[in-house]
Amino acid sequence: MNILALDTAGKTAAVAVLRDETLLYESFLNTGLTHSETALPMADAALRACGLTPAQMELFGVTAGPGSFTGLRIGMALIKGLALPGDALCAGVSTLEAFAWGVAGRGTVVCALDARRGQVYWAAFDLATHARLTPDDAAPAAALEDFLRGCEKPVFFVGDGAGLCYNAYEGLPGVLACPPALRGGRGAGVGLAALAAYRAGRCVPPAALVPDYHRLSQAERERAARQGT
Amino acid sequence: MNILALDTAGKTAAVAVLRDETLLYESFLNTGLTHSETALPMADAALRACGLTPAQMELFGVTAGPGSFTGLRIGMALIKGLALPGDALCAGVSTLEAFAWGVAGRGTVVCALDARRGQVYWAAFDLATHARLTPDDAAPAAALEDFLRGCEKPVFFVGDGAGLCYNAYEGLPGVLACPPALRGGRGAGVGLAALAAYRAGRCVPPAALVPDYHRLSQAERERAARQGT
Repeated sequence: MNILALDTAGKTAAVAVLRDETLLYESFLNTGLTHSETALPMADAALRACGLTPAQMELFGVTAGPGSFTGLRIGMALIKGLALPGDALCAGVSTLEAFAWGVAGRGTVVCALDARRGQVYWAAFDLATHARLTPDDAAPAAALEDFLRGCEKPVFFVGDGAGLCYNAYEGLPGVLACPPALRGGRGAGVGLAALAAYRAGRCVPPAALVPDYHRLSQAERERAARQGT
Repeated sequence: MNILALDTAGKTAAVAVLRDETLLYESFLNTGLTHSETALPMADAALRACGLTPAQMELFGVTAGPGSFTGLRIGMALIKGLALPGDALCAGVSTLEAFAWGVAGRGTVVCALDARRGQVYWAAFDLATHARLTPDDAAPAAALEDFLRGCEKPVFFVGDGAGLCYNAYEGLPGVLACPPALRGGRGAGVGLAALAAYRAGRCVPPAALVPDYHRLSQAERERAARQGT
């Protein structure tokens, strides 16, 4: 099964092409350029490198949230556009779960995305099994302490919010350093999460793919505050 | 410091652009195409994605061996060609050490490249510090058992020879599964190994960059056998 996987949920972008569990191609971009400029060329380069076309892809995986509202919409729109002509199966996967699938080891991985205002979107996973330990949540980085003190060690952080977490917890016993260059969310992880979703029967046609914003947008929050709801 | 890193030592190819310890771009290709066709377009795509030119790169890192003779020569020739006009610093790094820099965790990582004839080029590193535990060596996969029984656990395998090692040692206590999609050598690791070489004063001008083949080529071995030397 040919899989195209895409992540544009955070500050970085990642693409991968897998054939079942084999990684054929992967790329990662962390230049601050907007995903609307870079994501389609990255997907195009990935398919060309593998000698494949969108019509040959049998599963499209995309990070569906949490993440930046604009980033999620860019990723969704791109994957829907590529999958729609062939009505190919799509898997919208948790951004945090996808990042967990991109690392291996023993202990706990905490995937964290910068949610602005000092907050992170975060969730924890068992490194060896990729089993989820906590639900996707938005919280101040400082609020993870209770979980971190009680979780299986060693623990390390990945994702574009990992820096915030390391600032808060670098000295905590059992917290393992992870070089900044290895903290980025990987396309391979998105592909493996999509494959797991496929095997669990959790794929949808492209028209049914929807983002999971996890919280109201700033405009919606402000309207609700004005209306006192 | 802008770093361009390249690996064409084994069956897969990898490129990365780093700014000091920050990963700006990374790509990985595992399609069986010859590096002579794919490596230069990959390096070109990497620099374009970052809006950089070869003249702006201050350090070139390349896997210098072990690896396939042809693959090593392709990587060396490409990096020499890019570095020569500006006489930029080059770091020829151990392929196995570079792959170790691409993973993090606690325990031991054994980096293995398929050396054909049932052998692997291998070396072991501490996962947390990337300190080398064994020298680069070529051996039958079956010969790693003594080391594996005595090393700090957990242990896992990366590189295009990881499959041979997992076939031999999957059931050994402390041997950790690593999904096939995460076993490939990473460009980020080559870049971090090159940065470590730079900080240790082990860089050279492009003309002085040489591969480390680790063993005689088949033609040289056969001539030696004919000559009884």
